[in-house]
Amino acid sequence: MLKTRRILFLVYDGFQLLDMSGPASVFATAGSIANEVTYKIEAVSAKGGEVRSSAGLSVMTKAVGKVRLSEADTVLVVGAPERPLSRAMADKRVSTWLTGLPDTSAHFGSVCTGAFVLAAIGLLDGRRATTHWAGCKQLAALYPTVRVQPDALYVVDDDIWTSAGVTTGIDMALAMVKRDFGTTLANQIAKLLVVYAHRPGNQSQFSALLDAQTTANGAFSDVVA
Amino acid sequence: MLKTRRILFLVYDGFQLLDMSGPASVFATAGSIANEVTYKIEAVSAKGGEVRSSAGLSVMTKAVGKVRLSEADTVLVVGAPERPLSRAMADKRVSTWLTGLPDTSAHFGSVCTGAFVLAAIGLLDGRRATTHWAGCKQLAALYPTVRVQPDALYVVDDDIWTSAGVTTGIDMALAMVKRDFGTTLANQIAKLLVVYAHRPGNQSQFSALLDAQTTANGAFSDVVA
Repeated sequence: MLKTRRILFLVYDGFQLLDMSGPASVFATAGSIANEVTYKIEAVSAKGGEVRSSAGLSVMTKAVGKVRLSEADTVLVVGAPERPLSRAMADKRVSTWLTGLPDTSAHFGSVCTGAFVLAAIGLLDGRRATTHWAGCKQLAALYPTVRVQPDALYVVDDDIWTSAGVTTGIDMALAMVKRDFGTTLANQIAKLLVVYAHRPGNQSQFSALLDAQTTANGAFSDVVA
Repeated sequence: MLKTRRILFLVYDGFQLLDMSGPASVFATAGSIANEVTYKIEAVSAKGGEVRSSAGLSVMTKAVGKVRLSEADTVLVVGAPERPLSRAMADKRVSTWLTGLPDTSAHFGSVCTGAFVLAAIGLLDGRRATTHWAGCKQLAALYPTVRVQPDALYVVDDDIWTSAGVTTGIDMALAMVKRDFGTTLANQIAKLLVVYAHRPGNQSQFSALLDAQTTANGAFSDVVA
């Protein structure tokens, strides 16, 4: 039986393009290699139309007012640097739409600092959740009822999925596919995208590894011939 | 002195969104954390306007006819699955525009299967280059003068940069930033995007690691709590 999953990414001016495109490519690849799965992927925004990412590249979106949450299987809020993120958190059109989420059967969550948008409207109250390593302390300070997990690449609490910084959205999307359609498909996607099926370690270990690379500059040989 | 780098991504219907957005996020992050660097990032296509990626999400582009190659510092052709890739290789508007590249001072190259578009118009003749692991044999068979390097995450031959599959475009973009602005900035970007500054190993080793993960299913503990 053909299974269709409808995925919505909530974006806004200044959003991190990779927060959306990483997971989107995971889902799209799942749909392209597995006969029994189709993913319908859309970007939604407060007003609809063209929305500019922090990289300067713009994507086309539908207005939240024209998209019913009840038709979505998964809704993910993407992250952004501080200023555009604050504007998104203050946008009533966005928050009003998102507050309907717990009344639907949709799984929802965030990539990177998108967790702040969910936390600001109480959707992470009492939940385990994570965000970009640079934002974990602030998330915990602003929303003390959120049980922030700074070391995870992503966290699942019931049907709420939150990922750590930027590319960890890819790790989380792979885990979503694995849950829905099994390990074999998730591993095939990882191989096609040339990413780890499971990145070993956690966000802080990963940062420590990067620190080690920075310190021991040149210790890792460059693959440029 | 403020340095500006203008980066153009050549895209077409059905392109792999992550091939563009991965490198774009690296360059955009460089611009956001280093005072002395500004990156101007644009997507260009045969006709301009809205272009749909393989994930179903659309990005806004300028028409190649309206963008002078001489104003670009770097031009990267993105990849796609076979069918949309073939259409891009046959598009005269794209190939005519790209053939002007060697007459400019722009660095150019490709991400993933974008190498086929460059090879089809002879721009990789006699060059060392790479592409997605699943396409290396075909690239070598179709264009025997291209010296295909199937094991590299990316290859640099003079000013021609080609990356392997999908996410290796991120590794390549980090190397470009490192070359232009140093290791410290490249490492800061890697840490912010939660990726390796230098991924150890090469494309085939990486695939072997994924095979090992697939075989020893569950040997790597999941980070989902």
